Amino acid sequence: MVDRVYNFSPGPATLPVEVLQQASKDVVNFKEMGIGLIEMSHRSKEFMAVTDDAEQLLRELMEIPANYKVLFLQGGASSQFYMIPMNLLGEGKKATYLNTGAWSKKAIKEAKLFGEVDVAFSSEEQTFNRVPKQSEYSVADDSEYLYFVSNNTIYGTQFPEIPVTDKVLISDMSSDILSRKIDVSKFGIIFAGAQKNMGPAGVTIVIIRDDLLEKTPDNTPTMLTYKTHADKGSMFNTPPCFAIYGVGEVLKWLKKQGGVAAIEAINIEKAGILYDCIDSGEYYRGHAEVESRSLMNIPFNLPTPELEAQFIAEAAKVGLNGLKGHRSIGGCRASIYNAFPKEGVEKLVAFMKEFEAANPA
Amino acid sequence: MVDRVYNFSPGPATLPVEVLQQASKDVVNFKEMGIGLIEMSHRSKEFMAVTDDAEQLLRELMEIPANYKVLFLQGGASSQFYMIPMNLLGEGKKATYLNTGAWSKKAIKEAKLFGEVDVAFSSEEQTFNRVPKQSEYSVADDSEYLYFVSNNTIYGTQFPEIPVTDKVLISDMSSDILSRKIDVSKFGIIFAGAQKNMGPAGVTIVIIRDDLLEKTPDNTPTMLTYKTHADKGSMFNTPPCFAIYGVGEVLKWLKKQGGVAAIEAINIEKAGILYDCIDSGEYYRGHAEVESRSLMNIPFNLPTPELEAQFIAEAAKVGLNGLKGHRSIGGCRASIYNAFPKEGVEKLVAFMKEFEAANPA
Repeated sequence: MVDRVYNFSPGPATLPVEVLQQASKDVVNFKEMGIGLIEMSHRSKEFMAVTDDAEQLLRELMEIPANYKVLFLQGGASSQFYMIPMNLLGEGKKATYLNTGAWSKKAIKEAKLFGEVDVAFSSEEQTFNRVPKQSEYSVADDSEYLYFVSNNTIYGTQFPEIPVTDKVLISDMSSDILSRKIDVSKFGIIFAGAQKNMGPAGVTIVIIRDDLLEKTPDNTPTMLTYKTHADKGSMFNTPPCFAIYGVGEVLKWLKKQGGVAAIEAINIEKAGILYDCIDSGEYYRGHAEVESRSLMNIPFNLPTPELEAQFIAEAAKVGLNGLKGHRSIGGCRASIYNAFPKEGVEKLVAFMKEFEAANPA
Repeated sequence: MVDRVYNFSPGPATLPVEVLQQASKDVVNFKEMGIGLIEMSHRSKEFMAVTDDAEQLLRELMEIPANYKVLFLQGGASSQFYMIPMNLLGEGKKATYLNTGAWSKKAIKEAKLFGEVDVAFSSEEQTFNRVPKQSEYSVADDSEYLYFVSNNTIYGTQFPEIPVTDKVLISDMSSDILSRKIDVSKFGIIFAGAQKNMGPAGVTIVIIRDDLLEKTPDNTPTMLTYKTHADKGSMFNTPPCFAIYGVGEVLKWLKKQGGVAAIEAINIEKAGILYDCIDSGEYYRGHAEVESRSLMNIPFNLPTPELEAQFIAEAAKVGLNGLKGHRSIGGCRASIYNAFPKEGVEKLVAFMKEFEAANPA
């Protein structure tokens, strides 16, 4: 494939070329069966195997304990914002949220429909440029769970350590799942939209501890009850087949890279190259505080909005795409998820140096 | 592509070969942009165009009036079972349902969570082998809407005429949307999972009349409020990009076939070939009453369950796949949606005649 661009989009995001090439074959003729993957019955043994393999591989790569279910759901991570409190809260129940960005804010809004919400920390007044230390918040004794967003795509912050709590711990890991080793046994629920680190858009992974499946109030719609999907292996109704397949292919690729520990080392190296460039002078300024910096999304500014616009336009001309920052904070942003190649980061850094030299502040 | 099978699956179902071939190219490199369709930002102008084009083509093919919104949602048709009553009912409100199969039954169950449900007709005691005539049910004056399933995939029945009512008319058209001309202006909501007549699994189309967007009760979760998606052009959160793309490609194919009226004529012809074979003797027996017969799904029985198993196995050996009936009624079923080729029906009928001759009752 010639002239492939480096795609810094925050999601849907770049996928491994070998995954794209495999999908290209399978879409039209799956395993030489004379039928395309996207027209196969979800109840065929071949597609059931696709789903089972994806689940087993995720369990292996994340070391998911046996008392957790893995669900392939639809509706995006945004649907988990209401499904979690719908299943776990109710009249008189309370949950604790850490407000570290746009996605936690949306989750808090939905949770308030189902119970009392205690926002134990917020960095909103500092334009969400950091996440809290463990000492900066406390969780009420009567709280059902502690909810946090592991990595904040827009603001480029990431929890360097997983919060410690004796409550049920819930995390939106949409933008950093599988990018670093975590201990799943510390969590009640981990969820993530696939389209950043795991595959194409259209499926959301929910990893949920068994006992939490029993807490759903009566009168919750069937499709919104976690247990419905857990009991049917995510096949209660037709699942998003292609997206599940895509996740499976990305997981195979990740295993070939050496798994989560190996990709974490590469992610640290990739982000380091870019942060070193940002930190090497005054021209580029990172948005996040150093201790809260994300390995996945790196928003930065140039001396003026005009230079930022010029930077983004010229970068696109040399095949560095998707560098525009989110509208809420402007500037530039490089999203460098698992599948983003190190060469692309090196090319970006070389471009940044050239641009600075050619366009002094 | 050699050795392509004839895929009689009820959904996900056979897709036009040219759609598969186009998808095969676009997945890996969309429009020679150097980026795969499934890794492109949903907010890129190129992907926004994919969504806009799909919507416009659907509007054109179905002649959707300007006062209707077209939404691309997730969660399958099963999620509409609760979203409709969640948005349109509430304490003290009533809706009328026609119970003509497994899908209406599930929809009735969910509606009861949100209001009073009047089941004005049911063919459950006759194993759902027919749909009602207009004279067989009435809709209460205080009913908010009349809900029916246009085509019943499992039982092979289809409403030959659209019910007439002065109430808001709502239809699950998952298995016959775009297969025949209908007057959208008679409906309040039409919805359909894509994976039978429109594309790959993973997206549900909701066509909703403007005024119904204003009826949602307060405290409905943001993602479950139709207006959220209507106001944002189905881009409130990351949509199921590949599935939307697939629908767009199927719609382009349908337009090339001559549109809905042209495919309806072909559908009548295809179903006629198969029903003629069933009606030509005693060996094969259709499940549905003649006046309720579906043009899309044709369940039938052989003299014994043993012959049925043998029939399904031998058919698969000659490239006639997916003929096993749904577990709830057993037997055989041929699903012959828009994209299923006439040659496949002819091949099936030839096989049926051979099988009968070789295996007398």
